[in-house]
Amino acid sequence: MIEISGKNYVAGTWSSSGTYTYKSMNPATGEKTTFSFVDATSEEINTSMKAASKALSEVKQDQLPGFLKEVSFQIMNLDDKLIKTANWETALGKQRLINERIRTMTQLEQFSEYISNNHYRDIVTSTQPALHRMQIPIGPVVVFPASNFPFAFGVCGGDTASAWAAGCPVVVKAHPSHPQTAEIFAQAVHRAIKKCVLPDGFFSLIHGHNVSISKELVLHPQTQAIGFTGSFTAGKAIYDLAYTRKHPIPVYAEMGSINPIFLIDISNDTIKSIIDSITLGVGQFCTKPGVVFILKQQNNIINKMINAINQKKTGILLNKQVKDKLIQQIKHIRNIKDVVLLTGGNPVKNACSFENTLFQTDAKTFLQHKELQSECFGPISIIVTCSTISQFTSIATNLDGQLSASIYVQPKHYTDAIALRDVLVQKVGRLIFNEVPTGVAVCEAMQHGGPFPATTAPYSTSVGMKAIYRFLRPIVFQNAPNQLLPVELSKSAVST
Amino acid sequence: MIEISGKNYVAGTWSSSGTYTYKSMNPATGEKTTFSFVDATSEEINTSMKAASKALSEVKQDQLPGFLKEVSFQIMNLDDKLIKTANWETALGKQRLINERIRTMTQLEQFSEYISNNHYRDIVTSTQPALHRMQIPIGPVVVFPASNFPFAFGVCGGDTASAWAAGCPVVVKAHPSHPQTAEIFAQAVHRAIKKCVLPDGFFSLIHGHNVSISKELVLHPQTQAIGFTGSFTAGKAIYDLAYTRKHPIPVYAEMGSINPIFLIDISNDTIKSIIDSITLGVGQFCTKPGVVFILKQQNNIINKMINAINQKKTGILLNKQVKDKLIQQIKHIRNIKDVVLLTGGNPVKNACSFENTLFQTDAKTFLQHKELQSECFGPISIIVTCSTISQFTSIATNLDGQLSASIYVQPKHYTDAIALRDVLVQKVGRLIFNEVPTGVAVCEAMQHGGPFPATTAPYSTSVGMKAIYRFLRPIVFQNAPNQLLPVELSKSAVST
Repeated sequence: MIEISGKNYVAGTWSSSGTYTYKSMNPATGEKTTFSFVDATSEEINTSMKAASKALSEVKQDQLPGFLKEVSFQIMNLDDKLIKTANWETALGKQRLINERIRTMTQLEQFSEYISNNHYRDIVTSTQPALHRMQIPIGPVVVFPASNFPFAFGVCGGDTASAWAAGCPVVVKAHPSHPQTAEIFAQAVHRAIKKCVLPDGFFSLIHGHNVSISKELVLHPQTQAIGFTGSFTAGKAIYDLAYTRKHPIPVYAEMGSINPIFLIDISNDTIKSIIDSITLGVGQFCTKPGVVFILKQQNNIINKMINAINQKKTGILLNKQVKDKLIQQIKHIRNIKDVVLLTGGNPVKNACSFENTLFQTDAKTFLQHKELQSECFGPISIIVTCSTISQFTSIATNLDGQLSASIYVQPKHYTDAIALRDVLVQKVGRLIFNEVPTGVAVCEAMQHGGPFPATTAPYSTSVGMKAIYRFLRPIVFQNAPNQLLPVELSKSAVST
Repeated sequence: MIEISGKNYVAGTWSSSGTYTYKSMNPATGEKTTFSFVDATSEEINTSMKAASKALSEVKQDQLPGFLKEVSFQIMNLDDKLIKTANWETALGKQRLINERIRTMTQLEQFSEYISNNHYRDIVTSTQPALHRMQIPIGPVVVFPASNFPFAFGVCGGDTASAWAAGCPVVVKAHPSHPQTAEIFAQAVHRAIKKCVLPDGFFSLIHGHNVSISKELVLHPQTQAIGFTGSFTAGKAIYDLAYTRKHPIPVYAEMGSINPIFLIDISNDTIKSIIDSITLGVGQFCTKPGVVFILKQQNNIINKMINAINQKKTGILLNKQVKDKLIQQIKHIRNIKDVVLLTGGNPVKNACSFENTLFQTDAKTFLQHKELQSECFGPISIIVTCSTISQFTSIATNLDGQLSASIYVQPKHYTDAIALRDVLVQKVGRLIFNEVPTGVAVCEAMQHGGPFPATTAPYSTSVGMKAIYRFLRPIVFQNAPNQLLPVELSKSAVST
């Protein structure tokens, strides 16, 4: 039976020397835990980071594939309390969480497989001069998990898994919306570390309801890279703070986007799949389509979209902050002239919930109001009516960086779609045809990223095997005697 | 016969609408040109950047290999005035410049070869879901060339060549120490662009004696990445400025380092090669060894080093700024207690020159004075006497990020060297055994970079084929009909 201690996991030791405490809350009922979580002290943070730095040089690369598999195994072995607790803390629903657990385990196993040979090291050698170039871990990584994926972007989620795979010790800042879930994962990691005899500093879990805890982690001299998934406001704040470091470090923040859909052509199930995508997970996906561009001759679909979204139940949002922000954003949008509220638009009384909401406006109004390009994290989308396909293209030119964009187009309009495609290529990390943006496959071919403000590092991905490269950096050994080459290189027979 | 106009090259047009002018100067004689260079106006900058943005979508990938070769050909065809002018502006010596021209041409040809197949696109595909992932150009790049490599890190140097190879249009800010040389290269590029029928915006050359010109380039909304090679002060200023952009972009600044040498063992030619390396190019290499750590039982080599460096002629520095900065830095170092001046230490009167200079100190003093870790750009080095090899290791722990470090070690001490190696791996981009750090081969296996403050992007290299990845970013096409896949992908047969 899993017991929750409310403590920080500081490089192998459960620790709670601090005095500030907070409770875990059920967004569906408003109920709080009887016990508390203890914010980490500066000393606990320092111990975690220093142990991480030490672990960096102690851990052996050939321990890592086994460790990643073992973490997956330990997650599988967690009893039903994992799902129950995560559902209590997030209201995401048991089936969704069961699926997300499988994805989380699979990710760990995929990274284990990915590093089982030296390919990811990108070894290049030359003989004249004698050079051996390879990728090495960048150093201790601080991970800020997302609220909306308590498992897949949680304590053992994609950021952590890819950093571990790279050989980087990880200090996770627990998301204050699901600290119980975080602790359960930390317990699983603890068992894996012991079983695989990894250095204790390879993992720590830090509680921090106070923002000062996050600040200390970002500014700690041992921190060498940051992985973040969440809102633009929080991601940009971390990016800004990291900039003030004496030694700047890479910040990999995935901050969401509005994932525009351009409807050149519509087929039978287009409307259903778009409305499903807008409302999936109560609209709390970084890939939720926040704006749907339609042509004026398609205006007849608007009623169909309203009908389709009205048939969807309202859901429970992840936490009160999500609801409060939505209330503020939607109030603002409702006040914009020439933006029409089609349906929804109000918070649900006495519940952590917001109505499924559709707005409609024209291209000119959309372009005039930059705030319509801000992500509304919830079941909200804006339909923008354009006069021509070439107006799609000129609007696309004015879009910010995006995680994704989708074009719905049939063969008769392929030629017209090329100009739109060529503009969107400059704006997005993923360009989708005739499919919705939600559903991000975890594989080597995936790209989940994009130009600012979608992320702070357009050259990186936070989903899929290539996410490992965020936490690697190249080094070259010049004229090294065989005895002084690191083991990864002395084993290598690669040559140019 | 090459004629110099003093104008900016604004996307195909020689232009000088500005009013601020400056002259090119010979550092050896103090002589100035009779004609002037004209700082670009905001309008000229804007025209260049907008044309670059347009060129990004117009240029075809299959034009690039031929264009890079053509630029190399045009550089070869430049008459003797190139070498004469560059020598007049830099005092680097004709033979050095002849060699550097060959390196510059070779780099361009190597990049042409590197992109002649799709390998650099890093194409990964999957069928379920249908994904095509590949690297695409990041967008218009602004390049700030180095003072010390007027060709190889100049207008057509490594930064420009790698950005072009990636498919990125480039706007070069001419180095104010060699604007004539810059214009001669721009003339060569102009001919290559015309011959290969590339869009005019693929290249511009902007003169800017005023720092406001650089600022406008860094802040321009069309700028998508920055390549810089030079001093920490200038590089950090650009990094800081780029941070204030509304849309942050990657800044690849190579800012030099002190490239420490650790002498565990000494062989016959060690001293000669180290002194050669310190004084090569009048000590104006980013890979110059700025500090040599020796063991106290090796103190007898100090006199040999003094003798060796005293036999070297003093040389002409690149410009007055280099001399002025050295005067200031050396004055400061001479005032540090327990730092002994062994030889040199003074500016050469009535010449843009500084004496070949060696200092000596102990480990404790070195660690106490952080300013001894600042690069002195000139023929200066500091010998630091340590008591043991393990003191080497503890000093290495306290070093800043470096482009390189060298360990001189013989087989009898390999075991002792491992701890030092493991610390240095965390600090450097290139770890060298029994060789000096100067001499950076241009090949795929090279890594020229390192943790801050050596660079602002430890995951990148600015020398060698992998430099292209600074100017690429990944995108994935999901469920794309064959007719809407870009040509690079529809040609590809790669699959996972």
